[in-house]
Amino acid sequence: MQIKYGLIGGSGRMGKEIELLLGESGHKCVLKYDVLGEWKSGDPEIIIDFSMPQALNNTLGYVKKYKIPLVIGTTGLSEEQLNTLNTMSQDFPIVQSYNFSVGIQMLLKCTEILKENLPGWDVEISETHHRFKKDKPSGTAIMIKNLIGREVNISSLRLGNIPGNHTVSFGGLGEVISITHSATSRRTFTEGVLKSVLFVMNKKNGLFSFNEVLFQK
Amino acid sequence: MQIKYGLIGGSGRMGKEIELLLGESGHKCVLKYDVLGEWKSGDPEIIIDFSMPQALNNTLGYVKKYKIPLVIGTTGLSEEQLNTLNTMSQDFPIVQSYNFSVGIQMLLKCTEILKENLPGWDVEISETHHRFKKDKPSGTAIMIKNLIGREVNISSLRLGNIPGNHTVSFGGLGEVISITHSATSRRTFTEGVLKSVLFVMNKKNGLFSFNEVLFQK
Amino acid sequence: MQIKYGLIGGSGRMGKEIELLLGESGHKCVLKYDVLGEWKSGDPEIIIDFSMPQALNNTLGYVKKYKIPLVIGTTGLSEEQLNTLNTMSQDFPIVQSYNFSVGIQMLLKCTEILKENLPGWDVEISETHHRFKKDKPSGTAIMIKNLIGREVNISSLRLGNIPGNHTVSFGGLGEVISITHSATSRRTFTEGVLKSVLFVMNKKNGLFSFNEVLFQK
Amino acid sequence: MQIKYGLIGGSGRMGKEIELLLGESGHKCVLKYDVLGEWKSGDPEIIIDFSMPQALNNTLGYVKKYKIPLVIGTTGLSEEQLNTLNTMSQDFPIVQSYNFSVGIQMLLKCTEILKENLPGWDVEISETHHRFKKDKPSGTAIMIKNLIGREVNISSLRLGNIPGNHTVSFGGLGEVISITHSATSRRTFTEGVLKSVLFVMNKKNGLFSFNEVLFQK
Repeated sequence: MQIKYGLIGGSGRMGKEIELLLGESGHKCVLKYDVLGEWKSGDPEIIIDFSMPQALNNTLGYVKKYKIPLVIGTTGLSEEQLNTLNTMSQDFPIVQSYNFSVGIQMLLKCTEILKENLPGWDVEISETHHRFKKDKPSGTAIMIKNLIGREVNISSLRLGNIPGNHTVSFGGLGEVISITHSATSRRTFTEGVLKSVLFVMNKKNGLFSFNEVLFQK
Repeated sequence: MQIKYGLIGGSGRMGKEIELLLGESGHKCVLKYDVLGEWKSGDPEIIIDFSMPQALNNTLGYVKKYKIPLVIGTTGLSEEQLNTLNTMSQDFPIVQSYNFSVGIQMLLKCTEILKENLPGWDVEISETHHRFKKDKPSGTAIMIKNLIGREVNISSLRLGNIPGNHTVSFGGLGEVISITHSATSRRTFTEGVLKSVLFVMNKKNGLFSFNEVLFQK
Repeated sequence: MQIKYGLIGGSGRMGKEIELLLGESGHKCVLKYDVLGEWKSGDPEIIIDFSMPQALNNTLGYVKKYKIPLVIGTTGLSEEQLNTLNTMSQDFPIVQSYNFSVGIQMLLKCTEILKENLPGWDVEISETHHRFKKDKPSGTAIMIKNLIGREVNISSLRLGNIPGNHTVSFGGLGEVISITHSATSRRTFTEGVLKSVLFVMNKKNGLFSFNEVLFQK
Repeated sequence: MQIKYGLIGGSGRMGKEIELLLGESGHKCVLKYDVLGEWKSGDPEIIIDFSMPQALNNTLGYVKKYKIPLVIGTTGLSEEQLNTLNTMSQDFPIVQSYNFSVGIQMLLKCTEILKENLPGWDVEISETHHRFKKDKPSGTAIMIKNLIGREVNISSLRLGNIPGNHTVSFGGLGEVISITHSATSRRTFTEGVLKSVLFVMNKKNGLFSFNEVLFQK
């Protein structure tokens, strides 16, 4: 099955990697939209958005126009924008996540366990990324913080071209337990995007997390 | 409530720390047994054994003689010795664990989740301890390996006076997730021993893990 | 040789550890000064100050009154206070450092090598300490930053009762090199203080770093 | 300047990356030799060997036949083979190293400092690489061990597709200092190979380390 997709933010790092992997898998980019404007060679069956929050309205315009699903990994969305996605998902199937790796989903599951079993322990989050990363802290670090559900310090380091490391640590008097996820290539994320595309193409509507893509039967 | 306890292996590092904490908590050592022989000033209500595998028979002799519970943290027990403990536990309550820290229990819980969700990923265990540690690999590393349930490489490092670090890593193509536990003092372990002592004093019989001490209602 | 010393800040964590080690080594505390006031049983031959910056004037008063050396490890001193120490050192021998461990001196030496050989690489400093630490970032992290000699981000984490970890990382495109120092007990620091005391007792005057205590012939 | 080079071991991971970078830099592969045999389209001006120890004789045959320099990064060479390279270098310029990254050279420099200043401390080396790596321990870990100059334990971990991490740790009573190098892509190494090629093309003869390539004026 060849999927014709539209790509928002195709000139960024993730955009290029997505186009590479989806191309290798036999899928075809028929619409692009980024700061240079729109380029189009056909009608998309799905929209993939890895761009900036300010592009969201335009993205949703495509979803409505072609009545198609959306996979969105753009970080830094506002509360209001997340609400808009929620409302839109009554009519369209949407996968929204700040991180599309299996390992990060595992880090979140383990974090939940530590949070429940270690009340009163100190918590620290830290993340290290390449020097070109624009947002700080990372969307994934924010996901972890939201999961902890209280005020937690996030340390953000920028070094060379590290694809992305995240650590969450719980410290008690006498011991520390830490969970660290390291991406060794961006391929990890694009494979998660491809999984999400295949998942959402078969849905009628609804807002899905990447966790649901992975574990929903 | 003051508990009168017997301590097997009291001249070792853990033995001394146990005596310190139990003393601070108002309990009293009335019997000691180690390489120098037996010392006794009263009848114990419980036996605590943090010694060597070869002392087990003598330890079980005390349990039978005084008809009292046992908390045992001795590492390197053989399959046969574990079976003996199991049989003994029909008549006496016993807590047996290679590690008495809450954080290690959390590491084990998280390891179980990773093991179930990441089939086909590579697994590596590593542990770092002080230069004086006699067994290699550590009993805790063996617990982790047994939980994984297949052949896994264990790297053992010996450095200075590190109380004890354990890491289990799962590696896929494109990402690695690791869980690390670091003990910052031996107090962590002795508090677990104290919890186990209080727990097992109220039991009739049965073989309990430290996980059950922590989470059994 | 028994040294009679005065201790400023004796009720803090470091103060207590210093008193413990110096006592074990046969030295005697004859004067104490902290928030509770002064306690005195004799004339000190040296002053040791591990307190707060606001106590400095009082400390220097003792040095002048008894005409004795000073070892000071108080963190957070102002530029002006450091200048005062410098002036005082024309008449009295003074050891001033934010960190009294051999390993940290090694970390600084290695950092200097990386700084000289890896121009253009990104640099990040991070430090993790126990939840009770009052200053943030640590004095040692500031020492590392000053050595780098340009604007560098410092991440400060507070977890459980970790004695103190420091990491400096240099990141290029394609590789990262990091140096990490972990204190496993406060004894490391107090032994450095003892070395400094013995060193400074034989000096006429001058302001010395802990590096000079270790490596000056 | 276009360099015509011969590549021994071109079908391996490093071989492919070298061909890619040297191609981007305008250089041309005119001879290849690997398990499939020889392929040739011109006379090489230099030989680059990233293959297996058993290919060395054949490699040296090319060097003698065309009277050209050699850059060799093959790991696992025997004492005898290293002696042969030494003898050959009286007539031909040769760069031999088990690791062509700047960061690893820095790790070696820092290790030397720690070794000299921390006698009596415990030392541990560990290395983590992708699951496809054939040799164990890595050639770089052996370089570090040789530098330490005494028996040191090396822990080797194999996880996913990690390009390569090396850590050397020194542990004293009370503190640990570690230096870690992480390659985030193989590009690091191929750029070192290119530097070595340009360096050795201008030499008459001699056996050079990668350290000399980087720092010899």
